[in-house]
Amino acid sequence: MFESAELGHRIDKVIYDNEVPKLREALLEAQIDLAKLAKFQVIILISGVDGAGRGDTVNLLNEWMDPRFIETHGMGDPSDEELDRPMMWRFWRALPPKGKTGVFLGSWYTWPILNRVRGTTKTADLDQSLERAKRLERMLVDEGALVLKFWMHLSKDKQEKRLKLLEADPKTRWRVTQRDWKHFKLYDRFRRVHESVIRHTSTAEAPWIIVEGFDARYRSLTVGRVILDAIQKRLTETSSITSEVHAPPPLPSIDQLNIIKTLDLTQKMDKKTFQDELEKYQGRLALLSRHPKFQDITVIAMFEGNDAAGKGGAIRRISGALDARYYNIIPIAAPTEEERAQPYLWRFWRHIPRRGRVTIFDRSWYGRVLVERVENYCSKADWMRAYSEINDFEAQLVRHNIVMIKFWLAISADEQLRRFKEREKIGFKRFKITEEDWRNREKWEDYEIAVCDMVDRTSTEIAPWTLVEANDKNFARIKILKTLCQSIEAAINKL
Amino acid sequence: MFESAELGHRIDKVIYDNEVPKLREALLEAQIDLAKLAKFQVIILISGVDGAGRGDTVNLLNEWMDPRFIETHGMGDPSDEELDRPMMWRFWRALPPKGKTGVFLGSWYTWPILNRVRGTTKTADLDQSLERAKRLERMLVDEGALVLKFWMHLSKDKQEKRLKLLEADPKTRWRVTQRDWKHFKLYDRFRRVHESVIRHTSTAEAPWIIVEGFDARYRSLTVGRVILDAIQKRLTETSSITSEVHAPPPLPSIDQLNIIKTLDLTQKMDKKTFQDELEKYQGRLALLSRHPKFQDITVIAMFEGNDAAGKGGAIRRISGALDARYYNIIPIAAPTEEERAQPYLWRFWRHIPRRGRVTIFDRSWYGRVLVERVENYCSKADWMRAYSEINDFEAQLVRHNIVMIKFWLAISADEQLRRFKEREKIGFKRFKITEEDWRNREKWEDYEIAVCDMVDRTSTEIAPWTLVEANDKNFARIKILKTLCQSIEAAINKL
Repeated sequence: MFESAELGHRIDKVIYDNEVPKLREALLEAQIDLAKLAKFQVIILISGVDGAGRGDTVNLLNEWMDPRFIETHGMGDPSDEELDRPMMWRFWRALPPKGKTGVFLGSWYTWPILNRVRGTTKTADLDQSLERAKRLERMLVDEGALVLKFWMHLSKDKQEKRLKLLEADPKTRWRVTQRDWKHFKLYDRFRRVHESVIRHTSTAEAPWIIVEGFDARYRSLTVGRVILDAIQKRLTETSSITSEVHAPPPLPSIDQLNIIKTLDLTQKMDKKTFQDELEKYQGRLALLSRHPKFQDITVIAMFEGNDAAGKGGAIRRISGALDARYYNIIPIAAPTEEERAQPYLWRFWRHIPRRGRVTIFDRSWYGRVLVERVENYCSKADWMRAYSEINDFEAQLVRHNIVMIKFWLAISADEQLRRFKEREKIGFKRFKITEEDWRNREKWEDYEIAVCDMVDRTSTEIAPWTLVEANDKNFARIKILKTLCQSIEAAINKL
Repeated sequence: MFESAELGHRIDKVIYDNEVPKLREALLEAQIDLAKLAKFQVIILISGVDGAGRGDTVNLLNEWMDPRFIETHGMGDPSDEELDRPMMWRFWRALPPKGKTGVFLGSWYTWPILNRVRGTTKTADLDQSLERAKRLERMLVDEGALVLKFWMHLSKDKQEKRLKLLEADPKTRWRVTQRDWKHFKLYDRFRRVHESVIRHTSTAEAPWIIVEGFDARYRSLTVGRVILDAIQKRLTETSSITSEVHAPPPLPSIDQLNIIKTLDLTQKMDKKTFQDELEKYQGRLALLSRHPKFQDITVIAMFEGNDAAGKGGAIRRISGALDARYYNIIPIAAPTEEERAQPYLWRFWRHIPRRGRVTIFDRSWYGRVLVERVENYCSKADWMRAYSEINDFEAQLVRHNIVMIKFWLAISADEQLRRFKEREKIGFKRFKITEEDWRNREKWEDYEIAVCDMVDRTSTEIAPWTLVEANDKNFARIKILKTLCQSIEAAINKL
């Protein structure tokens, strides 16, 4: 695996001095073309062994490239903010937008490797981390990103020599720490783990690029040239990736029975019972949110439903019981310009709350498999891969003690019509009804199929859907509050 | 996940009797079109819970469909032959060729699920198995196969009811065993594992199709319709999958140094030393192959190299030391018709030996990333994904105690020219030199790049490449024999 990176590659100073100005000019031009086109982002990981020039390479890239279009992220120990959220959050928040380049010194590989070498995790754990990394990278590539993973390598001899050289020079002595020598003693162990990482995660779409790190000129010129070649090649690829899928068609509905049609929408709750129950569950929720253990969990409640199903009203019954400092309501509408320049899930990752907080999503990441599917806002390949990306996303949240509660508010077509008409009549509600609502209504059947597919594919034990019969608002609101209280109680009791 | 398959789906007898004849006719027609086109195969997995009608469904498919184009494989306990080889071998040997349909009752999911439910494996082990399954399926889809994974589901109540119904009927009583009731008691445990399996392996290209199994008519009609729809859809998809990859270009050779160029091809061995060494290592090999522990390992030695590098001669020096009953030499030439109708690796899987045997491959699965890459016999996407598929393949072999030894025989361009000319002069060697050899020679540089990439990407700790300096035949042959002996000794000592 490391054969070609142990040959003693080097570049003469004369050649180097001759090549660099041309390379720098070309890199700047490529950056500007990339920014103008703004069709994809470049994600560069700089990984490898100690002393192989990772930091120097990053510094050099910053020197060579236009700072307007490049961002560097040194991923050291995570901050408090970051520890309070799932591991991948820190990488998501640092993703460069389309048109820009993001350089990561330290990546989603750093900790899995260190933990395995130190023996705090087993091979199977490492494999799980690597599969997660692969899924992340595949998603990034599917979303259009150019992912360049550099691995700076040194043979054992060369690592020792390089650490000694750095130590001998007063200008660089401070860079060699106890930790570096401790790692050097573990060279063979590191090498085995590194090899396994590279073998498992060198995919066709994002292979590792292994660079011998000893000679600074060779290393710098190689990294620069690979980046330049890759960006230029991608810029000239006229056709975007045709990610057509050969997938079997969905389950035919041969008996007209589906999960939505079986809901009993006639369920009702009278006003008196509603008032009593509302008081009871809002009180319970308020107490729960003040429970000492609440500081160790995070709550995400997510609302999807037919138009006019009463999401807003239900959400207000929840927020009414909470302390305004500790909750957030995120209405999901058309993405902003900034959001459009990022992979789809970015706009949701950015709102993942810290521990001890509640975040309520009014519509959500399921838009991909609902409105975007039905209205052809994305390709079939995009929404088909979304199911597993979403399951993956939610699994990461749940692994981090996030209580994930997903509501689908269902009303009948007749009830929707009644509410639409009512909205048109009442002044202060008129803003809530648009042409688009009427258009969506015409696709009732298509939406119903999409909802059933969504529930079948994403209602999991760790993040189940709660289907709410919402023709009667009182009944729906209490069912929602009750489910929320029970889920939070279960999570607190499990701690 | 199982919501839609617990609704109590059923189909009336009248409707069923009306639908079935039409469905059967259409299925037969689709089968014939599939066979005529012979562009892809259909792989159907029938999985699910006990009593959900898996066996009945397979019987029905065999009744409905044309037996010339369908094969059924009941994958029960593995045979002696199968236990002697890596787990996936039994599935590879059972793959249907293009144009046909293969139905698997029991699959690569069966044992991982059972082992997890019984607690003999951990979640991380299950995850590893599932990732392997996903990689296999992705490869099958990339190779063109239509993969349909059916999951027959029953709710807990329905499973109990169905087992009791089967028991009550004298005609089916024998089908309910102690094991079924034992599994029923573990229903919740099974359900959790099943859910996790379905969640992890419902990919865009091969999603699980969950079918409620209680009502035989609903189940049968659904499965039949899905198969029909999927085949018809695939037949009409004119364009084959354009698996273009957005991958970074290979490492530029900025200093003209590569792993092949650094080999010292001047190394020589005189005739006398050669005779002594040959006797020594052939004797050692003969003894090793008769070692009692040799029965517990399997040896695969694989030869690649430049044309005229002396693969044949080296192989004869090995086989000369072995008992003819225990070794096999597999020359890899252009694939047969049968092999062309299968995924690429099939032609190698079929030759994987039992324990206690030696198999020597004269050229190998690396053809994909050498000649097929250089001569454009396959698409770029195909050879780029081949590296990880090959690493995966070899990892499976090594996990099964197979000693994997890979030789690259390198000669210089001058030496090759000398040997080509010699071959043309000597009568009995003339058959060994063709126009193609001269043509390949013109692409010396392209081949060298491909070889370096191959070594970098597939020389792993578990299956390293041995580069053999082969300008001097004596030197090369001894290096090969010595490496072989050492690898086998290491494997025996590890047992």
